[in-house]
Order: sequence, then structure tokens, then C-alpha cells
Amino acid sequence: MILIGQFDSPFVRRVGIALTLYGKPFEHRPWSAMRDADKMRSVTPLMRVPTLVLDDGTALCDSSAILDYLDHTMPVDVRLTPATEPQRHRVLRVAALACGAGDKAVSLFYEKRLHERVSDAWVARCSEQVRETFALLERERAAAPGPWWFGERIGNADITLAAVFRFIAEAHPGLLAVDALPAIATHAARCEALPAFQVISQRFIPPA
Amino acid sequence: MILIGQFDSPFVRRVGIALTLYGKPFEHRPWSAMRDADKMRSVTPLMRVPTLVLDDGTALCDSSAILDYLDHTMPVDVRLTPATEPQRHRVLRVAALACGAGDKAVSLFYEKRLHERVSDAWVARCSEQVRETFALLERERAAAPGPWWFGERIGNADITLAAVFRFIAEAHPGLLAVDALPAIATHAARCEALPAFQVISQRFIPPA
Repeated sequence: MILIGQFDSPFVRRVGIALTLYGKPFEHRPWSAMRDADKMRSVTPLMRVPTLVLDDGTALCDSSAILDYLDHTMPVDVRLTPATEPQRHRVLRVAALACGAGDKAVSLFYEKRLHERVSDAWVARCSEQVRETFALLERERAAAPGPWWFGERIGNADITLAAVFRFIAEAHPGLLAVDALPAIATHAARCEALPAFQVISQRFIPPA
Repeated sequence: MILIGQFDSPFVRRVGIALTLYGKPFEHRPWSAMRDADKMRSVTPLMRVPTLVLDDGTALCDSSAILDYLDHTMPVDVRLTPATEPQRHRVLRVAALACGAGDKAVSLFYEKRLHERVSDAWVARCSEQVRETFALLERERAAAPGPWWFGERIGNADITLAAVFRFIAEAHPGLLAVDALPAIATHAARCEALPAFQVISQRFIPPA
């Protein structure tokens, strides 16, 4: 398999970490969706990262769909997302909230990068969405005080929360009041100490 | 359950159609993510539609995560997304491509709505992503000439493709060269003739 995208994207990173934790070998093409548009275009017309190219040439997009595929290649008892309800929707809900905040952080970044005069209403809205979603995640993470959010092993919710948290901290310094997020900060530090997080890692590089 | 969001969003609509096809009763709150920001804020800090509020009060966001939850409440043989590989990733891949094009169409809409001076590079990029992704979907849909894309029943890929196609046609007239997409146009017409599509339907209303 070939994973396309740079690990400063939390969406690429969560796929790379899942591949690593699952022990699946992959080639990595650290292309930028913007700077490497011609290369991206040759693989997928959507030109988004992550894209995972399977051994039969199929190009999968959308990190959630990619993780769903990877999960379904693994035995049920080692999957990063539970196979059955109600745990499944609880884990996917947290991952979706973190990804949603991540989407808004990306949107906020491009709003500022692409316009001399930003839409103040859009900047305020995206900023609130990021901050308030993380405030909710903090309250819920604090109420689940184990080393991992759900169960005894690291899972999709854990990985996604940590990846998005670091991305926002690097791409938008000061947007999140980190001192007010102690449960998430502790959680993220625990994740970032793992070999998979250290290997699948790149400091944020602003796109062209 | 309570489904929040207006059916002119293809993401809200695909959830509403799934609920309807599954025969699950739900209350509908046709709130606008923008105009009804205060109501949205009271339910989810992410303030995105669709949001599905479960009977225990849990608010799920992200249409893919919501559909995954709904699927997992149903017997395997009637699910809109296959439960097992390789069919599962084939269906989710098409849905993700259509949703990705839908995301870019939304992004394109806000770019024009929020700025007196748009980023020409962003407009060109989003437009290409929408057009070229639909060109790929057209080629692949034409190569699978049955009434439904995968198998003998309507499924997630069918619903999502039709919902996104109509949204783009209404929100961005002329962006897609519909005459060049005959397989998708035929597919969409077949879907739109179904009772579920006719009930779960709203012409595009530009957000405030």
C-alpha cells in the first residue's frame, strides 16, 4: 500500500499511525495536496490527502473511510474501532468531533492564507467551533480517567484526538487555551510518547 | 431520534433518506447551521449539520459516522453499506468520493458568499476537484450498468451520489456539464423518483 500525504496533517497522521500499530508495511509519499497538485491529480481527481493506494491500484480517500477499511482487514479483537455497538458509535463520535474540529482548523488556516481581507464572521465561527468542541472533549476525557479513552488498548478515538490536538496547537498557536485542557494535554503526551507517534510525525509546514 | 439540518444539504439528506429507507421514525429540526447558530450551539459545539440526537441524548455528528451507526442497528442483510470486505470499501470509496466533491462544492459556495474578492486559485482548485471527481464517478457508474451501483438493492453509494449530484446542480448551476454525465444523470433520476427521495427533499436555499 502507498500512503499519500504529509504527517503534519492530522488526517494523514491518524492513518499512518493506524498502519503502524497494525504492523502493515506501506510506502509513504509525503506529497502536499497543494504543492504537489500534479502528482495528486495523477492518483485521485479529488486531490485530497490522505489517499491510500491499495495493492490492486484502488485509491481510497477520506481518513475515516480508510481507517474503516484497515479495521476490516484485521481480526475483530485487535481493531482500533470496536466492531459492535454501542462502543462503536461512542468511539466514532469522539473521532468525528475531533476530526470536525480539525476540519475547522484547516478551514481557518486557508481563510487566513488565501485572503488579504478575511471574513471576520467566518474566522470567529471556526474559532468558536474549534474551542468549544475541544472544551466538550476535555470534559468527557476528564470523566474517563483511564490511560485510554475506551477500554484497555489505544484506539481510534485516542489517536485522532491526539493528532488533531497537536495539529491545532502547531497551526494555530494560542487558539486553544491548553492550560484549560489538562485531561487532553495528558492524553496527548501519553500518545506522543509512543513509538508509532514518534515515527509518524512531522511538524506543521504551512502549505504554499 | 432527532435529525437536525435542512435537506438541501446532501449530507443531511443522505441521513434522512437512510432513516426513511430503514423505516426508523425521527423528528426533523430543519435548522440552518448558520441562521440557527444559537439552537445548534445548544445541541453540539461543532455546530455542523447533520446532527443526529439519539434517544439517550447523545449527539452524533458527521454523516458518515451517523450512517455507520444506523447501519449497525440493522440486520446485516438489509444494511445500506455492506458489512464485509471487499464490497464494503468499494461502496464507502464511492460515497467518500461523492462526499469529497460535495465538501468542495460547499467550500466553493462559502468562498463566493463570504468574500467580495475571492481567491481565484481556490475557486479554480475546488471547481476542478468537483468536475474531475464527477468525471471519474461517471466513468465508473457507466461501467456498472445495473439499476443500482452495487448489488440488487439501493445502497449508500447510490444515495450519496444522487444527493450530492442534485446539490451541486442547484447550488452551482453550470459547474458540472450534466450532458457529459449521462450515467449519473440516469442514476440520479432513478433515485429521485423513489418516495424516500421525494419526501426527504428541499430545494437549495443559500445560507445567510
